[in-house]
Amino acid sequence: MDVERRLDELGLTLPAPGALPPEVQIPFAWVRVRGDRAFVSGHGALAANGSPAVPFGKVPSEVTLEEAQSSARLATLAILASLKATLGDLDRVTAWLMVNGYVNAEPGYPQTTAVMNPFSELIIDLYGTDTGSHARTAIGVATVPPNLPVVISAEVEIAPPKP
Amino acid sequence: MDVERRLDELGLTLPAPGALPPEVQIPFAWVRVRGDRAFVSGHGALAANGSPAVPFGKVPSEVTLEEAQSSARLATLAILASLKATLGDLDRVTAWLMVNGYVNAEPGYPQTTAVMNPFSELIIDLYGTDTGSHARTAIGVATVPPNLPVVISAEVEIAPPKP
Amino acid sequence: MDVERRLDELGLTLPAPGALPPEVQIPFAWVRVRGDRAFVSGHGALAANGSPAVPFGKVPSEVTLEEAQSSARLATLAILASLKATLGDLDRVTAWLMVNGYVNAEPGYPQTTAVMNPFSELIIDLYGTDTGSHARTAIGVATVPPNLPVVISAEVEIAPPKP
Repeated sequence: MDVERRLDELGLTLPAPGALPPEVQIPFAWVRVRGDRAFVSGHGALAANGSPAVPFGKVPSEVTLEEAQSSARLATLAILASLKATLGDLDRVTAWLMVNGYVNAEPGYPQTTAVMNPFSELIIDLYGTDTGSHARTAIGVATVPPNLPVVISAEVEIAPPKP
Repeated sequence: MDVERRLDELGLTLPAPGALPPEVQIPFAWVRVRGDRAFVSGHGALAANGSPAVPFGKVPSEVTLEEAQSSARLATLAILASLKATLGDLDRVTAWLMVNGYVNAEPGYPQTTAVMNPFSELIIDLYGTDTGSHARTAIGVATVPPNLPVVISAEVEIAPPKP
Repeated sequence: MDVERRLDELGLTLPAPGALPPEVQIPFAWVRVRGDRAFVSGHGALAANGSPAVPFGKVPSEVTLEEAQSSARLATLAILASLKATLGDLDRVTAWLMVNGYVNAEPGYPQTTAVMNPFSELIIDLYGTDTGSHARTAIGVATVPPNLPVVISAEVEIAPPKP
């Protein structure tokens, strides 16, 4: 449980798995596992109880760069919470592969790369460079659900569960 | 041919493969097959004859949520038509993996998840939960070609053709 | 070195690998290799020295369709430069699979497909249809870093290095 130990060292706690209002249907999987791959749906920031975490809105008109970066960090923890719920053990991730960051940005906002850096920095810190390195694209979009500052999706390689 | 039988039961008909005006070049594949994977290009709604299906425009200023959901359902049928044309048999899809929905949305529109739900519900209905389950990201973008309400791309796992 | 020979025949030169100002951190890989896959981060146009290539801005209000197409062609060369730096030999790419083009477009701009065609045409020219064929999605977004007209990401299949 090396990754969870490192989370502890950093003083970071995973949120409860995403809790949606009963009227919100999500007919898809937060994490889809097949063979040696786990495909991670777009995740936004969650509060400790699993509900979407404030602030909401666009960068930089409604939230600052720093707030969007905090939201990206919380979205990273939400992804880890979903991976843990699905895989049982975060150490089963053997390679981060491709990551997309969708930033809820004003047209022409030039800092989407900076918004996404806390994701990449935390994953490298937790997994080390060999496992944590990943390709990444960070774009600014018109809207993400539910109007969070950033939503992140990913594809990772996984090992089978330990016997 | 279980999936096609279920389409029949639901009264759904696949459109003709995407028919483009002669002046529109698409130097790419609607479906790219390699090994056990099929990669599906972004598809929008098609009419029965394979031409893009009305209505066009942005949610919610030019098309309603309900119209965008109908468009998403037609885009799903367009994807299935392309998969059938490429694979020969829709039952060769052994697992839906990762899906991206790009909604032609006004900035801040909070319902992109709802726009994409008809896709996920139809795929689960046709393929069942084990095969049909998928990771999904639904974002709102500035524009999609050719100004349809929603465009959907996907990666699926496939089995070899039956001998 | 068939691909590089064809680049020479076309009079095309790869740029230097992406050169970023020292204050810009990119805690991710331009190309992530794992097994038989290479995942390519979003790339924009580079000048010969590896710095982002003018023009910047949105299609069609700040750059024309033709300028955006030139930028897409330069982004394609930037991707090839990164693949060469990572793989050593561009002929190690055995199949182009899935490509995403993110066009920095005004809302409702209908020509994102045309913006991305130079990418697909060049890849098919260089690799031939069997290897170069790919699934593709071309959408218009609110912003891409660093305000270039288009950013392109890709997943490709690769062969092991030659002994």
